[in-house]
Amino acid sequence: MSEDADAEDLTHTTDEGDVQMVDVGDKPDTNRRAVAAGEIRLQPSTIEAIRDDQVGKGDVLATARIGAIQAVKHTWETIPMCHQIPITNVDTDFDLREDRIECEVAVETTGKTGCEMEALEGVTTGLNVVWDMVKAVEKDNEGQYPETGIESVRVLEKEKRPEQE
Amino acid sequence: MSEDADAEDLTHTTDEGDVQMVDVGDKPDTNRRAVAAGEIRLQPSTIEAIRDDQVGKGDVLATARIGAIQAVKHTWETIPMCHQIPITNVDTDFDLREDRIECEVAVETTGKTGCEMEALEGVTTGLNVVWDMVKAVEKDNEGQYPETGIESVRVLEKEKRPEQE
Amino acid sequence: MSEDADAEDLTHTTDEGDVQMVDVGDKPDTNRRAVAAGEIRLQPSTIEAIRDDQVGKGDVLATARIGAIQAVKHTWETIPMCHQIPITNVDTDFDLREDRIECEVAVETTGKTGCEMEALEGVTTGLNVVWDMVKAVEKDNEGQYPETGIESVRVLEKEKRPEQE
Amino acid sequence: MSEDADAEDLTHTTDEGDVQMVDVGDKPDTNRRAVAAGEIRLQPSTIEAIRDDQVGKGDVLATARIGAIQAVKHTWETIPMCHQIPITNVDTDFDLREDRIECEVAVETTGKTGCEMEALEGVTTGLNVVWDMVKAVEKDNEGQYPETGIESVRVLEKEKRPEQE
Amino acid sequence: MSEDADAEDLTHTTDEGDVQMVDVGDKPDTNRRAVAAGEIRLQPSTIEAIRDDQVGKGDVLATARIGAIQAVKHTWETIPMCHQIPITNVDTDFDLREDRIECEVAVETTGKTGCEMEALEGVTTGLNVVWDMVKAVEKDNEGQYPETGIESVRVLEKEKRPEQE
Amino acid sequence: MSEDADAEDLTHTTDEGDVQMVDVGDKPDTNRRAVAAGEIRLQPSTIEAIRDDQVGKGDVLATARIGAIQAVKHTWETIPMCHQIPITNVDTDFDLREDRIECEVAVETTGKTGCEMEALEGVTTGLNVVWDMVKAVEKDNEGQYPETGIESVRVLEKEKRPEQE
Repeated sequence: MSEDADAEDLTHTTDEGDVQMVDVGDKPDTNRRAVAAGEIRLQPSTIEAIRDDQVGKGDVLATARIGAIQAVKHTWETIPMCHQIPITNVDTDFDLREDRIECEVAVETTGKTGCEMEALEGVTTGLNVVWDMVKAVEKDNEGQYPETGIESVRVLEKEKRPEQE
Repeated sequence: MSEDADAEDLTHTTDEGDVQMVDVGDKPDTNRRAVAAGEIRLQPSTIEAIRDDQVGKGDVLATARIGAIQAVKHTWETIPMCHQIPITNVDTDFDLREDRIECEVAVETTGKTGCEMEALEGVTTGLNVVWDMVKAVEKDNEGQYPETGIESVRVLEKEKRPEQE
Repeated sequence: MSEDADAEDLTHTTDEGDVQMVDVGDKPDTNRRAVAAGEIRLQPSTIEAIRDDQVGKGDVLATARIGAIQAVKHTWETIPMCHQIPITNVDTDFDLREDRIECEVAVETTGKTGCEMEALEGVTTGLNVVWDMVKAVEKDNEGQYPETGIESVRVLEKEKRPEQE
Repeated sequence: MSEDADAEDLTHTTDEGDVQMVDVGDKPDTNRRAVAAGEIRLQPSTIEAIRDDQVGKGDVLATARIGAIQAVKHTWETIPMCHQIPITNVDTDFDLREDRIECEVAVETTGKTGCEMEALEGVTTGLNVVWDMVKAVEKDNEGQYPETGIESVRVLEKEKRPEQE
Repeated sequence: MSEDADAEDLTHTTDEGDVQMVDVGDKPDTNRRAVAAGEIRLQPSTIEAIRDDQVGKGDVLATARIGAIQAVKHTWETIPMCHQIPITNVDTDFDLREDRIECEVAVETTGKTGCEMEALEGVTTGLNVVWDMVKAVEKDNEGQYPETGIESVRVLEKEKRPEQE
Repeated sequence: MSEDADAEDLTHTTDEGDVQMVDVGDKPDTNRRAVAAGEIRLQPSTIEAIRDDQVGKGDVLATARIGAIQAVKHTWETIPMCHQIPITNVDTDFDLREDRIECEVAVETTGKTGCEMEALEGVTTGLNVVWDMVKAVEKDNEGQYPETGIESVRVLEKEKRPEQE
């Protein structure tokens, strides 16, 4: 557990255990950046289909990028205790490997609180969109997904530096 | 790849590779159910804190449940090619283990298309909400999350049966 | 407490106390109607201003009507445990009295669950929009609202009848 | 009517009566706070059920808190003429009395306009969520709500002070 | 003016001129389809850039397709008096001409009311997304858009046929 | 193509053609204003009906104004690559001509990026709302709209000046 005494150490619950937002009114505006990553395990034939444009001329990943970016911007309504912060940049990267797609989302803000939840929302939504786009080729004969899965969703880095004036 | 020739085998891209919704206009209304699951790896002390009400009197998981349910209902806007379907039931289950929380979300609909994306959205959002609620106690001294991660997001089952008339 | 044993008697919490949606999958489609009402207490001069078009040529109430109708349609996202149901009709009525405006909202649906929450959301939002539209003339010299208030928000009637086939 | 000549005295309608937003572009960023309150009248047995955890282990009020907080953040879309302002803090307080629950919501912002509408939206939505959570036990044998009502929704205080630089 | 006496002839205003939704509760579920079209006038060099993948490998149009589809699904909240209807299919077509892009959006529903507003929202949003994607190359040296414009937004066809049972 | 080398010249696609948001983190807060316009061609009898209050006592245009203002505020979710910027003012103007309604929307922001997309979204949505409000009187006997159309949607002006400190 962190010994770092900044206001973000406060939890989203009061001493009585009631859920609450964190008061960020006294926190300065800061340039903040967070990077999250994760991957979706797919059949090699599905990866091949995406790579060879059999599934689409890039629209699978274009759709996933847009889903990820929109999810980043919507985090304040998806995660109940998140504040709405001004997102200044979102970078999405999808890397096709033999049997998986790795997704990395970097988010930047000038707001009063960190943006790791925004980056995580971008990653999990981006991977869910990929799943949605390849449903037909990933399902087995019973309509199940025995080989599909989302793994290794994590925060790669988080940093802040005072805003340049 | 499935040899099951129902309309869901169609992908979200045209033969030319353009992204598209799937036409479900000729599909009958069907009772459908999908169950997805996943887990978030946390420090044992964080699990202990949740269990002993140190983090909150249940509000951590109550917030995660609500986040999951709302995410299920919002899937049609989060996942670009999803249809809006009438959700008739959502069951959320959070199971505290020694070093992780397992989350299972079951979704039922009477609509014209399956609801596995809704269940997956419920699971990933529910787990992200847990992450948000325990951020302060999971972060290390540098504000990073070396031990936190979301794993094993998968579809446990998917079924449909014709609506009883 | 009601002795009427239909499925709506189930609460939004499980036996263990966890929040949950109610399963409506086995409930038939039914024509349902709910009417809610409420009022906002205003200064007579404010009422006069609205009536004499001093505040606007009807746009105060037009804006309140639209706010109420949109709130009805958004109830499934505003009230966490509500289902999304097909709203077939919304009637809004605003009645100017000497020192208050009475608002009545009737909602009709063909869905599987009642629509009293939709009607209540329409009333409270409609009254809040009125408040917003007359803020400038209701505030006292200190910027406070000593005489403004929303009262008597209630469900006037609720009924259902099987859908005509 | 206020003689205080600040820009908020402008109404949401033009001289011709057309609805409009208020121009806040020349207003400074200010720390602002507004507190609203209201209450829902319930049967003593319902209050008892909430208090004794018969309705739920706190999830009734946890759900109401979350509904209130989300409503505060969504005010700019619910109330048509409201600006989107950066919400820095939301405090929700629910107080169980013998035959009613009192709800108080405090909202803070660093924006260019006041946040009393946000506080009011938090209160009315929080109370509507309570209503939704106890529907089954408040309804009488005919499915009506003769004893349930929302009352005394009001702004308790509103203040602003220049942002500390 | 139409002499066709079906319920859609009712306007969104009462006899007193108050805005209202149209009651569709007694209308049968019907398979309905509407097609709208429009075009955006662009500089030939911009069209060339899109065609030659200088602006992007298809992502300009993929983004426009997704924007159009999402706009179709959101029409019930964008157009205040629209009902939420079940969209079963959306087809988007973007045709690059020498100095313009033509966009056609077909929408299908099984609901109780027509979907021409959904098709129109798809077209105007799709064209606005194209504008957004090529802003940098369409602006002149003063940052103005002297040659860019959206034209000829119209409903190409509208039809309904009773649902097959 | 513009030779103006400011950061807005960057497109929404990377060198590899992937869709992306533009990084605005290093751009200063600036007072910006954009004005867009467009028109809807209607039958003279429809214009007459609106003017003579036959269609409604102003509620047609009040609804269009509100639709336009809400669309401006929602641009960041409607146009996938748009940032969410603080809107400080929206002016809507609807001008009834013999056979058309001209709509002009001016938007002001203090954000890090321009607001012409917000103004365009206001215009196209405002005109679509007008269409929706007069559907019944514009349709011909076959339910088609041979004479209705949206034309001349354009950006009239765009300017920025450094924020006064």
